[in-house]
Amino acid sequence: MEQTIRVELSETLKEKPKTDQLEFGRVFTDHMFVMEYTEPLGWHNPSIVPYQPLTIDPSAMIFHYGQSVFEGLKAYLTSDGDAQLFRPERNLKRLNRSNQRLCIPEIDEKLALKAIKELVALEKDWIPGAEGTSLYIRPFIISTEPYLGVAPSRHYKFIVILSPVGAYYKEGINPVKIAVESQFVRAVVGGTGEAKTGGNYASSLKAQEVVAKEGYAQVLWLDGVEKKYIEEVGSMNVFFKINGEVVTPALNGSILEGVTRNSVIQLLKHWNVPVVERKISIDELHEAYKAGQLEEAFGAGTAAVISPIGQLTWRKEHLVINNGETGEISKKVYDTLTEIQYGKTEDPFDWVEKVSVPSKVKHA
Amino acid sequence: MEQTIRVELSETLKEKPKTDQLEFGRVFTDHMFVMEYTEPLGWHNPSIVPYQPLTIDPSAMIFHYGQSVFEGLKAYLTSDGDAQLFRPERNLKRLNRSNQRLCIPEIDEKLALKAIKELVALEKDWIPGAEGTSLYIRPFIISTEPYLGVAPSRHYKFIVILSPVGAYYKEGINPVKIAVESQFVRAVVGGTGEAKTGGNYASSLKAQEVVAKEGYAQVLWLDGVEKKYIEEVGSMNVFFKINGEVVTPALNGSILEGVTRNSVIQLLKHWNVPVVERKISIDELHEAYKAGQLEEAFGAGTAAVISPIGQLTWRKEHLVINNGETGEISKKVYDTLTEIQYGKTEDPFDWVEKVSVPSKVKHA
Repeated sequence: MEQTIRVELSETLKEKPKTDQLEFGRVFTDHMFVMEYTEPLGWHNPSIVPYQPLTIDPSAMIFHYGQSVFEGLKAYLTSDGDAQLFRPERNLKRLNRSNQRLCIPEIDEKLALKAIKELVALEKDWIPGAEGTSLYIRPFIISTEPYLGVAPSRHYKFIVILSPVGAYYKEGINPVKIAVESQFVRAVVGGTGEAKTGGNYASSLKAQEVVAKEGYAQVLWLDGVEKKYIEEVGSMNVFFKINGEVVTPALNGSILEGVTRNSVIQLLKHWNVPVVERKISIDELHEAYKAGQLEEAFGAGTAAVISPIGQLTWRKEHLVINNGETGEISKKVYDTLTEIQYGKTEDPFDWVEKVSVPSKVKHA
Repeated sequence: MEQTIRVELSETLKEKPKTDQLEFGRVFTDHMFVMEYTEPLGWHNPSIVPYQPLTIDPSAMIFHYGQSVFEGLKAYLTSDGDAQLFRPERNLKRLNRSNQRLCIPEIDEKLALKAIKELVALEKDWIPGAEGTSLYIRPFIISTEPYLGVAPSRHYKFIVILSPVGAYYKEGINPVKIAVESQFVRAVVGGTGEAKTGGNYASSLKAQEVVAKEGYAQVLWLDGVEKKYIEEVGSMNVFFKINGEVVTPALNGSILEGVTRNSVIQLLKHWNVPVVERKISIDELHEAYKAGQLEEAFGAGTAAVISPIGQLTWRKEHLVINNGETGEISKKVYDTLTEIQYGKTEDPFDWVEKVSVPSKVKHA
């Protein structure tokens, strides 16, 4: 039987920010989704409630042992005024894979998708309409049992909050400078690198802080074992076009399986552009560069979609890629993905999922 | 100028649990210490307030990116009725080292120690008096800025909560069975292994869950690079007595520098027992076992003080150490450390720090 989501509407509505003043992840909508887990009840009481602070005991495990997972996806407004999601099932599948790694009880993916759709439908007026803007959707699970023992929590909250976000590139897609990270490590096989959990992000802050002072946008992470193989760029997956072929690091247990990553691979295959998932070392990349074969490089993730890499710095050598400009494939992938997301072009992969807005929550 | 700690007393006091019913970390005292960090104010408003839930925005960074650190130490009641701490300065120094790694602004260690002492003094009646019991002290820092960007938070809370805890060994010190972990990795050099941060503990839950089903108390962690060198046992440091010499893994960047670890090393040196910090591989340990030279093994940490290892299972082979019984050195270290902590013996190292209870908070 399909579960009903209880809805408690907010008595007052916030003023919506101006579209040209939107930042990423600073403003939140009027409502949020909350579902509780306790033993022996399991996940229960799925509810849409007014956006509000959480009241949590200071001994709750989330504050001590970091047992948490999250996801990130977006709702887009089409020119017809419809709201739509991009491959949300993949985010929810990944949330459950993260749950397994972090010993968190799995959620019902269908119920979670229904919750996201109902919440987005209710908050449809919060989806900004301007080019490149969207409504960022943040599902997350936190461990809330008031207990200081190092053990999986027996209480959790699954929450979804929404934030209207501006265009990632205010002046169009723009290549960035990246530093190859040689000191700090993001993740290692056997750790939590392929899960979307807080600790991976907390661990990454220091490297980012160091290179930001030197003018770099992000770091390129190498594997934690040999400090040799390329893993990710910042919190995105990474692609290189080498001598006509697009290469991305193969999933190995320490790399996050990005939804955008998978979409890029499918698009390239659809276009008959050679694409391969395999181990790639920083030395191989450097040699390709010296041979004039490193044609493009870009990051891929939900926030920026595609982030071209104009310069890569390794051992004080600056590798300038495609004259520091956005490459042809990077641009084509970016344009096509965003056109599909905003419903401006056909969707041959059936990636887009419409959010139906029932008349009772339709806004004036 | 010494900072004043504001005190707001609770109007009602909780009933204290019976000493023989104490669990670890489930019951908390009447008050807690809280200090806020915002920019540009820095750390401010140090306060002792009634123990109460935290009210935090669902977008606060702690719920998403795990930027947090913590410590663990204990207050002990002496037979004279005095409260005392064990080497608290080391915990606060380590808290600041963890802060550095996690991009959290450092705290004033003197103020933090003063806060802990004033809080413990106020809650002195909560320190259980029975053998082996104590008042567990949990200082922790969480990132509270309501922002979904992956960047260091600009708001934090430093909190100290107290929990009366029972004897770790209800029937005396007791050897445990440990499984050598071959699949999961706790930490790697370049990661956060030497910091006391939530992500390390979240990451460790899965391995623990797997071996617990097979009847093991904990895992023995190997290094994440070669899966060869011994790092820690569960969330404790580890020691082995091999052919008369005590060996513990050298601090390498992925091992936590335990206060108990340091104290054990100092005690052994004081007794002229040979002790060395160096790399030690699981193969070396196995060979020592086969040669009949693996005489003792034990974990060392604040919670259990000393946890003897009676059996170590590696590649399905069971290494039974000291006939599965507590070794002579393990026992002597345990007895001496606890006698110092409870003020039952002299303290040649000046480890103990008395908590002075001012008359105004002295309880009847």
